[in-house]
Amino acid sequence: MTKLRVHNLAVSLDGFATGEGQSFETPFGHAQHRLMQWFFPTRTFVSMSGHEDEAVGAGTRGVDDAFAAATGDRIGVEIMGRRKFGPQLGPWEDESWRGWWGEEPPFHTPVVVLTHHERPDLVVGETTFLFRDLSAVDALSFATSLADGLDIRLGGGPTTVRQFLEADLVDHLHVVVVPILLGRGVRLWDGLEGLEERFTVEVTASPSGVVHYVFARKPQ
Amino acid sequence: MTKLRVHNLAVSLDGFATGEGQSFETPFGHAQHRLMQWFFPTRTFVSMSGHEDEAVGAGTRGVDDAFAAATGDRIGVEIMGRRKFGPQLGPWEDESWRGWWGEEPPFHTPVVVLTHHERPDLVVGETTFLFRDLSAVDALSFATSLADGLDIRLGGGPTTVRQFLEADLVDHLHVVVVPILLGRGVRLWDGLEGLEERFTVEVTASPSGVVHYVFARKPQ
Repeated sequence: MTKLRVHNLAVSLDGFATGEGQSFETPFGHAQHRLMQWFFPTRTFVSMSGHEDEAVGAGTRGVDDAFAAATGDRIGVEIMGRRKFGPQLGPWEDESWRGWWGEEPPFHTPVVVLTHHERPDLVVGETTFLFRDLSAVDALSFATSLADGLDIRLGGGPTTVRQFLEADLVDHLHVVVVPILLGRGVRLWDGLEGLEERFTVEVTASPSGVVHYVFARKPQ
Repeated sequence: MTKLRVHNLAVSLDGFATGEGQSFETPFGHAQHRLMQWFFPTRTFVSMSGHEDEAVGAGTRGVDDAFAAATGDRIGVEIMGRRKFGPQLGPWEDESWRGWWGEEPPFHTPVVVLTHHERPDLVVGETTFLFRDLSAVDALSFATSLADGLDIRLGGGPTTVRQFLEADLVDHLHVVVVPILLGRGVRLWDGLEGLEERFTVEVTASPSGVVHYVFARKPQ
């Protein structure tokens, strides 16, 4: 049974999953990299980023890494919102933008990019970006057809995750609360009153100062 | 040195410290008692509420109780907003309302109630309520003059706490994040971007599912 999973979705203590003012230079707006500081020291990140010290097993192996490492486990496809792919709004002025991730993106699977402005499929390294104008339900069906029996990662951003939560399509939601106050940006939790009734919730505080929330959907 | 301390300020995961629709029947609006469920089993609460099982030492003594018990330690006076005292708005229609707490409120100290509509001092049991129209700075001075060298508790609600945080008057802030989504009500964190820069932050997850945040103001 294919599940829809969210991993490592970081929010500030005041609930913002991204800051204000996204641009090519600042994918997270004024939040900059502060929401992901907990992630950078982990073994998982160090391995992904291909640092030469990877070979010597660098990086932490504590609770933050345990959660980080689960991100890619048995994932066959990712769904993301257009704002995770790039900062552009409206029709594509050109199609030269190939995402934030360089020539070998970390996905290595099909990635469904939800957008009202479709464009041709884009192959970058081992990743294929598929630009589709689909509802949450239809996107999940399409992604399931591509997943080869594995799970689907819902990669963000917050507006996209909220849409899938509102439609009650998310099976596993891992949120990382970072002890900073961003004050402005895009909120994750708006419009989700009573969400906890549909999930069991497990909470773990990390020595790094972040708190890991795991929402697991109750059997229906 | 008298310090200004906030204890046991509970907020939902989406940042609401009280729900929508406060009334005489529902002091926390639609949140009802859900923000304080973690508190009721503690030894501290059981003792306060004067249950007959107090004598046998009932109540939990875990991390939630450890935080709850610190609430009254060396407190000489409390400051609260008018909405903590009662649900009325505007001029007092009559002065028959004596607070939510019956004939022996749990304060046992002077309590400064901040309101634009002053009324005569009110003695209830061992507690005296002093209704004053003061700025945050002036309220702190007034409370300090009453505190007899002890500390001052800033008792809420969220709007009042936010005012004192904006004015950088709070020395100790204990917030309890409850894993529910209220969706609406009064937010604690609005307008406090960058608050963490002025504080050290310690985070503890409780087996009850709540997370205790302690903000301690950095030496100036």
